[in-house]
Amino acid sequence: MSAVEVGMTDEKLRETLLAHIHDVPDYPKPGVMFKDITPLLADAKAFGLLTDTFAELCERLGATKVVGLEARGFILGAPAAVRAGIGFIPVRKAGKLPGACLAQSYELEYGTAEIEMHADAVGPGDRVLVIDDVLATGGTAEAALQLIRRAGAEVAGVAVLMELGFLDGRRRLAEGLGDAPLEALITL
Amino acid sequence: MSAVEVGMTDEKLRETLLAHIHDVPDYPKPGVMFKDITPLLADAKAFGLLTDTFAELCERLGATKVVGLEARGFILGAPAAVRAGIGFIPVRKAGKLPGACLAQSYELEYGTAEIEMHADAVGPGDRVLVIDDVLATGGTAEAALQLIRRAGAEVAGVAVLMELGFLDGRRRLAEGLGDAPLEALITL
Repeated sequence: MSAVEVGMTDEKLRETLLAHIHDVPDYPKPGVMFKDITPLLADAKAFGLLTDTFAELCERLGATKVVGLEARGFILGAPAAVRAGIGFIPVRKAGKLPGACLAQSYELEYGTAEIEMHADAVGPGDRVLVIDDVLATGGTAEAALQLIRRAGAEVAGVAVLMELGFLDGRRRLAEGLGDAPLEALITL
Repeated sequence: MSAVEVGMTDEKLRETLLAHIHDVPDYPKPGVMFKDITPLLADAKAFGLLTDTFAELCERLGATKVVGLEARGFILGAPAAVRAGIGFIPVRKAGKLPGACLAQSYELEYGTAEIEMHADAVGPGDRVLVIDDVLATGGTAEAALQLIRRAGAEVAGVAVLMELGFLDGRRRLAEGLGDAPLEALITL
């Protein structure tokens, strides 16, 4: 089943996915409405539809590799890479990858964080699509784009299930994306 | 492509997968030889073969859900669940899941750790296959089996890419598995 094959409109896709995303108030802290994707993952049809949609995006953008961002980006990115028939690259929090890494720090609301990618994971000739569940302020995704460019690869784009539009992550990614697209299946 | 369809023997499968797993000495600490699966993930054919093998196992064992253990179990378990057409359930380190959870602590070499699963993720009528990259001492997998049973579901089995036989994790899982199998594609 694929969104294109069954003629599913973007609006119908959005509704189908949203029906399996639950609101959890005050998580991880008071005042935050957390978007829980675990019901979507537990529903084979919905997760299959999401995987097909991301895999088609890989093909449309000519991606040669998927980068998944720890940890929910692993769950969404790995099946998409397998279905598209391209390799999967984990980008992890600092200290979690065993080989020689490129590291990139980025700013959080308070302080900084750092992510890493194996230095030889992607390179010239690769076009890399970054997949994650949510685009919030865009710090992690922006750092991932920098890692991809520093490794000598091209950015194919960033794809997320949900974009929290009011946090303006799209603007933060503009420079790292260049001409490549940010594709959000749902904008909130 | 599937191991069964192409008539790949278990030995050939093992060789193909092992060729993409790299030894990293002294990681995460001196004296430990870490098995790095990132080259396998980056190779679309090898990762596809692994996914097919796990998906066939889901079907053979009559699994209705895959539990993936954070974080590498997410990368291997999610594509297998999607390919098998069954739901995926993340089991995470304590404090990472937003909903009401069952928690299970387990012993480490020094101290204890705790993992969690959403309380409503699996239940009566489910047969759950646990997927992870490596079976070492078996603490995490054993705790996951307890979570599954406490939620009222059946254990379909545990499937790992690699079993470190000398650490005797298989013995630790015996009670939690009951009659269900531990399937290791590679034993080291």
